[in-house]
Amino acid sequence: MNASSLPRATRLLDFAVRDAILLSTTMNLIDDTIAAVRPLDEEEAWAADARLGSLTKPPGSLGYLEELVRRYAAIRRDGNARWGGGAIAVFVADHGVAEANVSAFPQAVTVEMLKNIAGGGAAISVLARRFGYELRTIDVGVKIDTSAAPLAGVTYRRVGAGTRNLLSGPAMTIDETCRALEIGIEVARELADKGATILGTGEMGIANSTPAAAILAVLTGIEPASIVGRGTGLDDLGLRRKVEVVVRALELHRSAFGDGVSILAAIGGFEIAALAGFCIGGAAANVPVVVNGFISTAAAASAIKICPRVADHLIFSHRSAEGGHALVLEHLRVRPVLNLDLRLGEGTGAALAMNVIESALDLFHNMATFAAAGVSGKVR
Amino acid sequence: MNASSLPRATRLLDFAVRDAILLSTTMNLIDDTIAAVRPLDEEEAWAADARLGSLTKPPGSLGYLEELVRRYAAIRRDGNARWGGGAIAVFVADHGVAEANVSAFPQAVTVEMLKNIAGGGAAISVLARRFGYELRTIDVGVKIDTSAAPLAGVTYRRVGAGTRNLLSGPAMTIDETCRALEIGIEVARELADKGATILGTGEMGIANSTPAAAILAVLTGIEPASIVGRGTGLDDLGLRRKVEVVVRALELHRSAFGDGVSILAAIGGFEIAALAGFCIGGAAANVPVVVNGFISTAAAASAIKICPRVADHLIFSHRSAEGGHALVLEHLRVRPVLNLDLRLGEGTGAALAMNVIESALDLFHNMATFAAAGVSGKVR
Repeated sequence: MNASSLPRATRLLDFAVRDAILLSTTMNLIDDTIAAVRPLDEEEAWAADARLGSLTKPPGSLGYLEELVRRYAAIRRDGNARWGGGAIAVFVADHGVAEANVSAFPQAVTVEMLKNIAGGGAAISVLARRFGYELRTIDVGVKIDTSAAPLAGVTYRRVGAGTRNLLSGPAMTIDETCRALEIGIEVARELADKGATILGTGEMGIANSTPAAAILAVLTGIEPASIVGRGTGLDDLGLRRKVEVVVRALELHRSAFGDGVSILAAIGGFEIAALAGFCIGGAAANVPVVVNGFISTAAAASAIKICPRVADHLIFSHRSAEGGHALVLEHLRVRPVLNLDLRLGEGTGAALAMNVIESALDLFHNMATFAAAGVSGKVR
Repeated sequence: MNASSLPRATRLLDFAVRDAILLSTTMNLIDDTIAAVRPLDEEEAWAADARLGSLTKPPGSLGYLEELVRRYAAIRRDGNARWGGGAIAVFVADHGVAEANVSAFPQAVTVEMLKNIAGGGAAISVLARRFGYELRTIDVGVKIDTSAAPLAGVTYRRVGAGTRNLLSGPAMTIDETCRALEIGIEVARELADKGATILGTGEMGIANSTPAAAILAVLTGIEPASIVGRGTGLDDLGLRRKVEVVVRALELHRSAFGDGVSILAAIGGFEIAALAGFCIGGAAANVPVVVNGFISTAAAASAIKICPRVADHLIFSHRSAEGGHALVLEHLRVRPVLNLDLRLGEGTGAALAMNVIESALDLFHNMATFAAAGVSGKVR
């Protein structure tokens, strides 16, 4: 949403009035997107299932791949499960809580990795290139602002220069949180408009497994000690410190845990809120969103808290080795596509899972039917 | 092995003598291949590990993908883990035990699927094409002989026209078993010579989950009732009948269970023995062999029984939904790459897992290092 897209009359209003209208427009974008998320189209899933049953294989023998095809068809509202392309959005931001020494790596790594991801050298860059998925790298609030001399391949949608430390107050204001949600919605919508029929979530932000763990503890009720992990590789002392930080954050912000937006504001982060918006935006556009690991799951759980119907539009890519991710997936009653002990973030698990889903669709589209291949059917 | 590759003098011998020499040559091929299987090269694994540690990601954060890269490097004896290409061999044969009604599909499906696989319409055809892997479809003993008017894309290396019913005697003679093992070794060698640096196992043969279950019961000691599955989709009655068939087969052939070749002869099949040879041949050529599901695991376990050093050269692609495959993998103490409830056979799980391994190698080769990307290292 930028000013030039507003009606001419609005642009002529004085700034105070215009800002009020803009804020209400923003709220409308979020509300309208939430309202646009529909229940899945089960009829289209049945249509896909009928074709699956006609292919030259024992019925059901492609196991979870068949379920993924049905889900894709139901989300896309397309029994033919047509493929348009995949896109991965990597939202990058910094976290005030990094000053509490909750990460094994220094905060400078966020901007260094922003550059590396957009420059093609990061894991997600390699996988997106390999699979032919569009990779969108979005600075939503890295502490070091590079937008004056923009890094090649980076989209700048900065909400701020890192969040505030959640140990001394809310990480974000409600306005910042809505802005980040809105950015996520817009990116999902842009990628869907460009033809992507599947989206993957990615993120990078030093210290972001701390707010993610806090959010997941709030939303699942699981003890912080069972959820918090070593992130990029904390030692035992660091892990204990990180658990304490999460416990203190939960105490400090208890009164803010009534709704999803307030939870994100209090203990979230720019990229986490943007990813929550991305999940909602994808769902509203009838595009399945493949959720990466631990941090993306915190965002997805927030999105579900904000808009429960989003849940059916999400596919969980993998069971991460980070902290209590396995417990969280059980709590959400979802089955991850992969289980490779990944704990890298960036969307790497999402990319791999999207490729599995694309392979399932290839089988769906290109296997012969019993009739066409002249293969005999079941006898008992 | 064909006659023209023998020394000229041998070709001039009378047939009886020549056959004796051929048999001894065959035994030598098997014995020589077994002798050529070496322990893994751990130094090359360490070299790969050093590079993995230099890449821009938290150490170890690619989880099992990193282990797969180290294994690949150790098997290939190449710390650079170079990629040459993948190839999948699908061995197709019929089984006398099909007459005991142990399959949900009629025996005619074997030849129909032989044609479908080679013709591009089967699941494995789609995946091999998708991933760019060479697909070799080998008739090692389909009941209906199509070799007089050869099917396009089929390699004919027929040992017989289906095995004998293992309920009335050994499924194969020792000579037939050795011939099938030899064919598997030769195919693995040919594919490695053509440049494949990873091989996948595949099979098709109506009723072949019955001999596979019998072999796995013998080699793991797990009860038949816990191993036998529904194959292509048996009902409860069919499943009970199949368990009884396996129990009777184990009683009948008890005296033959002393060594791997005798087990294969008594209760195996042409494609299962060929796949066992394929595992040994791949191992001898320093090429990792990605083992597909239930039937391929029976072949792999037989190969390990014949030559224990083969085990380190095998990568188990997935945990199949067929029967007690999960129990068998636990018994073998191996970790499958995927767990998608596949139970289709043909090498479909192997193809998907090979693509995961290829993706891991792509990351290994093409991610930036900390030094090259100017990314800061760990601080705590």
